[in-house]
Amino acid sequence: MSNADLVNVPSSVTRALIADAFVAAGLPAADAEKCAALMTEADLTGADGHGIFRLPQYIRRLRARGFNAHPNITVMRTAPATALVDGDNGMGHLVMSRASDEAITLARENGVAWVGVRRSNHAGPAGLYAEMPARQGMVGLYAAVANANHMAVWGGADLLLGTNPLAIGVPSGTGPLVLDIATSIVAYGTVKKCAQRGLKMPEGWFVHAETGAPITDANRAHEGLLLPMGEYKGAGLALMIGLIAGVLNGAAFGRDVLDFNADDKSATNTGHFIVAVDIARFVPLNTFMSEVDRHVRELRASKRLPGVATIRLPGDRRGECRAQRRRDGVPLPKPLVAQLDALAAELKIKPLRER
Amino acid sequence: MSNADLVNVPSSVTRALIADAFVAAGLPAADAEKCAALMTEADLTGADGHGIFRLPQYIRRLRARGFNAHPNITVMRTAPATALVDGDNGMGHLVMSRASDEAITLARENGVAWVGVRRSNHAGPAGLYAEMPARQGMVGLYAAVANANHMAVWGGADLLLGTNPLAIGVPSGTGPLVLDIATSIVAYGTVKKCAQRGLKMPEGWFVHAETGAPITDANRAHEGLLLPMGEYKGAGLALMIGLIAGVLNGAAFGRDVLDFNADDKSATNTGHFIVAVDIARFVPLNTFMSEVDRHVRELRASKRLPGVATIRLPGDRRGECRAQRRRDGVPLPKPLVAQLDALAAELKIKPLRER
Repeated sequence: MSNADLVNVPSSVTRALIADAFVAAGLPAADAEKCAALMTEADLTGADGHGIFRLPQYIRRLRARGFNAHPNITVMRTAPATALVDGDNGMGHLVMSRASDEAITLARENGVAWVGVRRSNHAGPAGLYAEMPARQGMVGLYAAVANANHMAVWGGADLLLGTNPLAIGVPSGTGPLVLDIATSIVAYGTVKKCAQRGLKMPEGWFVHAETGAPITDANRAHEGLLLPMGEYKGAGLALMIGLIAGVLNGAAFGRDVLDFNADDKSATNTGHFIVAVDIARFVPLNTFMSEVDRHVRELRASKRLPGVATIRLPGDRRGECRAQRRRDGVPLPKPLVAQLDALAAELKIKPLRER
Repeated sequence: MSNADLVNVPSSVTRALIADAFVAAGLPAADAEKCAALMTEADLTGADGHGIFRLPQYIRRLRARGFNAHPNITVMRTAPATALVDGDNGMGHLVMSRASDEAITLARENGVAWVGVRRSNHAGPAGLYAEMPARQGMVGLYAAVANANHMAVWGGADLLLGTNPLAIGVPSGTGPLVLDIATSIVAYGTVKKCAQRGLKMPEGWFVHAETGAPITDANRAHEGLLLPMGEYKGAGLALMIGLIAGVLNGAAFGRDVLDFNADDKSATNTGHFIVAVDIARFVPLNTFMSEVDRHVRELRASKRLPGVATIRLPGDRRGECRAQRRRDGVPLPKPLVAQLDALAAELKIKPLRER
């Protein structure tokens, strides 16, 4: 997609539209603001499949009562260092923010905390939540059961596994270092972006379930299986994350996962977990950060393979993207702008161009 | 390698040889037995690069005082749910067994425990330790900084990352389900096995550091870079594991990692971590296990891609291998048997053939 097909919109504007849309669809103002802030962070950091792109679907689901607009999110402390959060089918961003706060509080007391979550929903990019403990001087570990099954078990042809993402965050002198990976070869949001922008997918992303032949047309992705990262390893990781983010919390996994792209009404019973580890219980926080900085410097300065211009570390793209988009705005494809205009008209809120 | 080049030896015999060799090299009998048991479990479960195969190297290192034969392994409880284990440069199997016991005890009290380890050593396959909490009704998570850097950061050509493995174990009705993956495309033990058996490596495992061209001769692996699983994702995971299993515990990572294949004398300061999560704090253990069993049945019964005979799940190969090798013995390549004979003569212990 050429730049001519993109419209750059300041993130303050996209954020305001998102918040207004959520309020118009029935969310309390504070909740609408929180969701808008996290979705805008996704847009700023280049997680294009998780920002304002998701707004039309989220609004559809809110209006169909597929999300509970007034959830009673409860936190049960089940042991000194563990909690189980019941999201009451609220927006995933709200449920996970609450779970993350709880993990940080419990880890401050106990050195580590493991917080499981059930009855939640899609919460955006995994990196958002792994970064929260990292900003408090902690290691953050986050994983989730994805909201649709796009993968099969290794060798299988039935869609029984999600792209179940994993993120790990640690603090460093220059801000959190955050790894955010889907267990699929590519995130499904990227596939949606390709479809929306008319881009061809490389071979190796999707295979046809009957023939095993590659699929490269993103609009035909639904006919196939998304492949795992690292072959059987990614499939195995997706399975284990499904068991400990889903089954452990009494949340959906496998055959019980609802395709939330196809169904706006039914509760997804999404499961996540977040772990926070208080670094100071192992090594002084300043020592940890200066050691991370030293290693990062050494990795960046290392010799490169032929054809490689720069060494890139986890989170580099997020950081660069955030800086650039804060300056230049969030690039929105024109079809998405049209969708957002229609949504604004429907909700009787100010469209992007009038903000 | 054909079967004619392999000698099947009962695991009771390999285990006894390992224990006798360790005692002859100066380990206390109970410690020798514990190491022998864990190395034999590696052999039985098909982790051929981590069992008796390692004995000559371990003995060399013990005799060179690279391992402390009489370590004072200490456990510091640094918070209610965390501990830091100092291995005093003892055998990794002993240090990690102690760390695992501590994690299980702390998780029973607090719901979760995170135990970091420093000044340890090579401890064999990751799956061994993730399985320990799983046998006690817990989720087990284990990772380690590998004992040599065979990988580069993504795009890099300097050996600054290890194959840093990750294992996750959960209980099920038919025994623990254990995922054990190196973050490299293949475990380095497998490369060593190829070299010893004269097998060619497939393209995509190693590239030449200067040219980026593939290397397929396992005996020339040291000239190249082992590639990560799933490209930048595996490299990112290896890096983050290095930070939280190494730097967090004051253990080695990056430039500080010693190649223990090339140096028998210096302390490696190996770092690991193990996490245990008490399942009953989230969902009744029986419910968890029966749900895991149901999902496993559904995954096994799923449709298969063309050419796939059976769906295989994490741990299947380990389980089948254990059953077969308990019955038929552990297959040892003849060059390894010759090495073990020479070792037995040197240590003045009974060789395999007289047991």
